Amino acid sequence: MSIRIGIYGYGNLGRGVEAAIRQNKDTQLVAVFTRRDPAGVKIATEGVEVVSSENIEQYKDKIDVLIICGGSATDLPVQTPKLAKMFNVIDSFDTHANIPTHFKNVDNAAKEGGNVGIISVGWDPGMFSLARLYSNCILTDGADYTFWGKGVSQGHSDAVRRIEGVADARQYTVPVTDALNAVRSGKNPELTTREKHTRVCYVVAKEGADKARIENEIKTMPNYFADYDTTVNFITADEMKRNHSGLPHGGFVIRSGKTGLNGEHNHIIEYSLKLDSNPEFTACVLVAFARAAFKLSSEGVSGCKTVFDIPPAYLSAMPHEEIISHLL
Amino acid sequence: MSIRIGIYGYGNLGRGVEAAIRQNKDTQLVAVFTRRDPAGVKIATEGVEVVSSENIEQYKDKIDVLIICGGSATDLPVQTPKLAKMFNVIDSFDTHANIPTHFKNVDNAAKEGGNVGIISVGWDPGMFSLARLYSNCILTDGADYTFWGKGVSQGHSDAVRRIEGVADARQYTVPVTDALNAVRSGKNPELTTREKHTRVCYVVAKEGADKARIENEIKTMPNYFADYDTTVNFITADEMKRNHSGLPHGGFVIRSGKTGLNGEHNHIIEYSLKLDSNPEFTACVLVAFARAAFKLSSEGVSGCKTVFDIPPAYLSAMPHEEIISHLL
Repeated sequence: MSIRIGIYGYGNLGRGVEAAIRQNKDTQLVAVFTRRDPAGVKIATEGVEVVSSENIEQYKDKIDVLIICGGSATDLPVQTPKLAKMFNVIDSFDTHANIPTHFKNVDNAAKEGGNVGIISVGWDPGMFSLARLYSNCILTDGADYTFWGKGVSQGHSDAVRRIEGVADARQYTVPVTDALNAVRSGKNPELTTREKHTRVCYVVAKEGADKARIENEIKTMPNYFADYDTTVNFITADEMKRNHSGLPHGGFVIRSGKTGLNGEHNHIIEYSLKLDSNPEFTACVLVAFARAAFKLSSEGVSGCKTVFDIPPAYLSAMPHEEIISHLL
Repeated sequence: MSIRIGIYGYGNLGRGVEAAIRQNKDTQLVAVFTRRDPAGVKIATEGVEVVSSENIEQYKDKIDVLIICGGSATDLPVQTPKLAKMFNVIDSFDTHANIPTHFKNVDNAAKEGGNVGIISVGWDPGMFSLARLYSNCILTDGADYTFWGKGVSQGHSDAVRRIEGVADARQYTVPVTDALNAVRSGKNPELTTREKHTRVCYVVAKEGADKARIENEIKTMPNYFADYDTTVNFITADEMKRNHSGLPHGGFVIRSGKTGLNGEHNHIIEYSLKLDSNPEFTACVLVAFARAAFKLSSEGVSGCKTVFDIPPAYLSAMPHEEIISHLL
């Protein structure tokens, strides 16, 4: 018997989930739900329906877990609580400051519906959160460092695209090697924003645009760029397509801490990701946690959960004895 | 209220647990149990009893979790099941091949006593097992690589010490940088034992011993050294004490895998540890899981568990809302 999955929202992440379901033999895709006209949405899996999101109630008994692939700014705060009343749900809500509120909303809705909702699943929040939690519980006297990149930040790319005269843009977040090495040395350095990451932009300017003004507007943009050393490279639309069409990302979570009666020993725990495709990797994490949601729901559990609440064995398709023999 | 912990066995690991308890404000050390004469065992914590292991039954209601710090070869297979009938227990059983049998024995005993037993806790098995499980669940189409070191292998050091003419010895396991880099590149190389690790020995020879024979006996020793490129350095007892008295260790768990409709994207997940003190780090992991055993037992759970069965939040001393706000 396989776990019947629905995808809600068919952008980069939804397509990634579709691909991940093919790699997990105990899962099957039942339907893709879209707010667009379903007739205009072509998916990669033959024989699977594309359905208007308005008709999702009809799938209440046909889906074990719904993976919600909307955006964190406006979609998920509304969609996840609403859908958790009807389905076991997974989302990748990543607005860190609003996670406690989102948790409460999903918890109420999921309990009302007798369902499980696992929120903020992906790599940050998600796998990086787990790396932080485990390493904090082990090394209680220490310091945490999270570095992102090298990778494309969609938010920063969008911010550059909104500047007048910009036809297209891609922004890479790049961790500073010296800072990484200082952390790995166990020195527990205090690092400013500028010391941890640099930002590199590739920009296609519109014909006749003032490049000096664009560069200045980028480098002085508050929150996004002003606190960083930023490099701006103007390239052609052709170069953009050829060299910057992917969505790579990754990063490092490092905890450095002391043990011993007098704190005489240093330890470094490091978790890192190097991802060719940010949305496809995130999708793989979502599908693993969809399996956990299915198992928990089958046991009668309901309410909101995070990656912190899931016993790791629940993520695996292997029987418990096999996990113990092969992976412990 | 703090978690009352007992330490069973007071060697390097037991001393590490004692130090770790001081770093975890919600735990307290109640007693150290020893098979030696308690009068001859001096511990670092004032006001805490050292008790003969024969009298442990008298502590049944005074201890919430007993951390068993015996060896995997002959101690733990007997001690953990026996003690799980009386106490919630944690051990660091690390004979990989015998884990399923140990699990069953502890499960029966713990259920009989209405206790929780968490076995094979530490870094390998333990944190490395978690890294393997999580990364396998995410990247289902991939390959696993575990590298150990640079660090002191006690088993290999002991093997060298048993050679005639050897007064003292220390053996370092060293991962091969080229192999690590090949794995990180995503090439999924097939690596032989010799290609993954080298072994470096520091040996103090007895006066008049035949160093050439000792070196040859080390390098040709089956299982321990014959399959590796091994370097033997003869040093003085003084150098041994000055430069090799620590017990550093560490290693790398790397999973490399593909995603996408046609496996077109590569991903690397890497978890690594760099430890100044192997026993102290292991002890910190044991204490975090002792907290989880206490919480599970308080909920009425009983039986054997592994690191795979524990929701990560159970390891933390922080309230759930705080974990979500600060670490997710």
